[in-house]
Amino acid sequence: MQYRIDRLRAALAERDLPGLLVGAPANRRYLSDFTASYGWMVVTAADAFILTDSRYLIQAGREAPDYDVRQIVNPGKTMPEVLAELCKELGLDRLAFEAAHTTVADHSRLVAVLGDAVALEATEGLVEGLRMVKDEAEMVRLRRAISMTDAAMEAVAPRLCPDHTERQAVWMLEQALRERGAEGVSFPIIVAAGPNAALPHHRPGDDPLGKGGTIIIDMGALLDGYHADLTRTLVIGEPDKRFRQVYDTVAEAQRLAIAGIRPGALAHEVDALARDSIAAAGYGAHFGHGLGHGIGLNVHEEPFLRWALPGGTSAPLQAGMVTSVEPGIYLEGWGGVRIEDIVLVTADGCEVLSNAIKLR
Amino acid sequence: MQYRIDRLRAALAERDLPGLLVGAPANRRYLSDFTASYGWMVVTAADAFILTDSRYLIQAGREAPDYDVRQIVNPGKTMPEVLAELCKELGLDRLAFEAAHTTVADHSRLVAVLGDAVALEATEGLVEGLRMVKDEAEMVRLRRAISMTDAAMEAVAPRLCPDHTERQAVWMLEQALRERGAEGVSFPIIVAAGPNAALPHHRPGDDPLGKGGTIIIDMGALLDGYHADLTRTLVIGEPDKRFRQVYDTVAEAQRLAIAGIRPGALAHEVDALARDSIAAAGYGAHFGHGLGHGIGLNVHEEPFLRWALPGGTSAPLQAGMVTSVEPGIYLEGWGGVRIEDIVLVTADGCEVLSNAIKLR
Repeated sequence: MQYRIDRLRAALAERDLPGLLVGAPANRRYLSDFTASYGWMVVTAADAFILTDSRYLIQAGREAPDYDVRQIVNPGKTMPEVLAELCKELGLDRLAFEAAHTTVADHSRLVAVLGDAVALEATEGLVEGLRMVKDEAEMVRLRRAISMTDAAMEAVAPRLCPDHTERQAVWMLEQALRERGAEGVSFPIIVAAGPNAALPHHRPGDDPLGKGGTIIIDMGALLDGYHADLTRTLVIGEPDKRFRQVYDTVAEAQRLAIAGIRPGALAHEVDALARDSIAAAGYGAHFGHGLGHGIGLNVHEEPFLRWALPGGTSAPLQAGMVTSVEPGIYLEGWGGVRIEDIVLVTADGCEVLSNAIKLR
Repeated sequence: MQYRIDRLRAALAERDLPGLLVGAPANRRYLSDFTASYGWMVVTAADAFILTDSRYLIQAGREAPDYDVRQIVNPGKTMPEVLAELCKELGLDRLAFEAAHTTVADHSRLVAVLGDAVALEATEGLVEGLRMVKDEAEMVRLRRAISMTDAAMEAVAPRLCPDHTERQAVWMLEQALRERGAEGVSFPIIVAAGPNAALPHHRPGDDPLGKGGTIIIDMGALLDGYHADLTRTLVIGEPDKRFRQVYDTVAEAQRLAIAGIRPGALAHEVDALARDSIAAAGYGAHFGHGLGHGIGLNVHEEPFLRWALPGGTSAPLQAGMVTSVEPGIYLEGWGGVRIEDIVLVTADGCEVLSNAIKLR
């Protein structure tokens, strides 16, 4: 934990920022192991504080012994008031905050109380930048979440029948994850059967899985705060003629993208490897989402493998980054195919972390 | 749905606002039944739009037929760009936004694109204000979620053994909810045994439930977007002498508060009924949280039953509001007792919606 706080301090020093107010739950957890749903952190060059209320005081002391805990009391000592007191105590007249995780309403309330005494400075991606490259403790958790997800997929997929509804399949998969030790699911499990599979983020309902249509299953275990994410596309019974062609196109696009992942590769170039291959097969208009996303304490986080930013470029990959690679083709009225695996960028390429079998 | 949109339009007209940009998922769902995890809405006096990306286009058309759907494309036509185009088309030079659900970063990006053409005006609680009083369709869903939760509690509580760990109990409860048709849990289920029950929001772990100590169970079904919330405190075997006294104090505080709930009662006065009673029994310092919260599309929403705002008052209750009533006493090293039920404010008092038996 101290190692992560030190990396944040280095990032703050580099930007000449005296301290950061951390509002995002995942960033808080990354820097402190404090798991509560409510709390703020202040990290400066010399000190580290957690601000939370009576519900989480004992927990904060237990989970985050490296931090000094200050109590928010409503009414009497609101969060902005506790923060103002702390800034005065530390002699801070400037403080950075996370613009992507602070609402306009909270910001106004902070400004109203801090007044001219403390200048708030908007920052973005400071802690997220650190989180992009995973450390050893994170990889242990990620690998466990991913292999648990593989095992659940392999246990349930062969048991699915045409009469099971999407919702029943979701519940079978979730039970399989939880029985293997998952503390929850990374996101609501997607099971999309037949034409529903044309919706990349279909919401499972009471339609039966059926015979011969595509079935997209997208799921992941949540373990100690870390997320897995795995997609497989199956057919029960005999697929139609189009299926093989679409499936092979997606599989080939994924293969090409994975072959291109290495330190220094640009995110949008990796995306293009898959996208161009799908376009060449005539399905360019049917792959509407990005190729992949980083994964860790959030299910979607930096780096994103997708189109370039307006400037025309994107960040180079670094060893230790973990991302999904998930091309898909979606045809309205017919269905869809998506194949998703998680890869770790290594010193000279990448390692595919997910191992669930593809196509039965 | 049209009824809800019309109520929003009346609220906008009353404040002389030409339109609202809706960013909060629960507000979006309330106004449109659009369930996707990503999207924005614009509601004006005459029109209603959903802005979303390719992943949710088909779904938006199906779930929200009353809305005109506009596509966000990254890159090319980002959300601020689609919004700017729409404002131009509608001749809007002012637009309200939800300050409590818009980050400082998103707001800056909007301002950068809209420039001087459209003035963004911060609002808070406009849709939440409508959502406080539930309509019939909402009550059907809430009642089902609540009775499902009652049934799961009654099915599992008698089966709990001293050797079960907190985590095992959580999983038994979650299975019982899901098998009864819940689409998920309202929030991660809390099971806190023995001294852990002194933490109001304890995170379940591998401690056994044990014999003779207090066990707090706090859980709820999620059904069609609506949340239930129910807390019971149990003891397996013989409780110690203190238990009866603490339990009766909490039960009496809850009884007094419920007896005080009626249209016109002020939220902080209802809170005080329970709080004063607990203080009179000598436990005032050990009830640190508010008495209750509204519940619906969010598990915690307006109205909140707690201390008065700095002005010294709080909003009067209205018929059709639904809130939890959940006093608690927490004693470090010993444990805690919390009892929580959901009540509906009626024309002349209130109806307790939860029916799970208390204390076996």
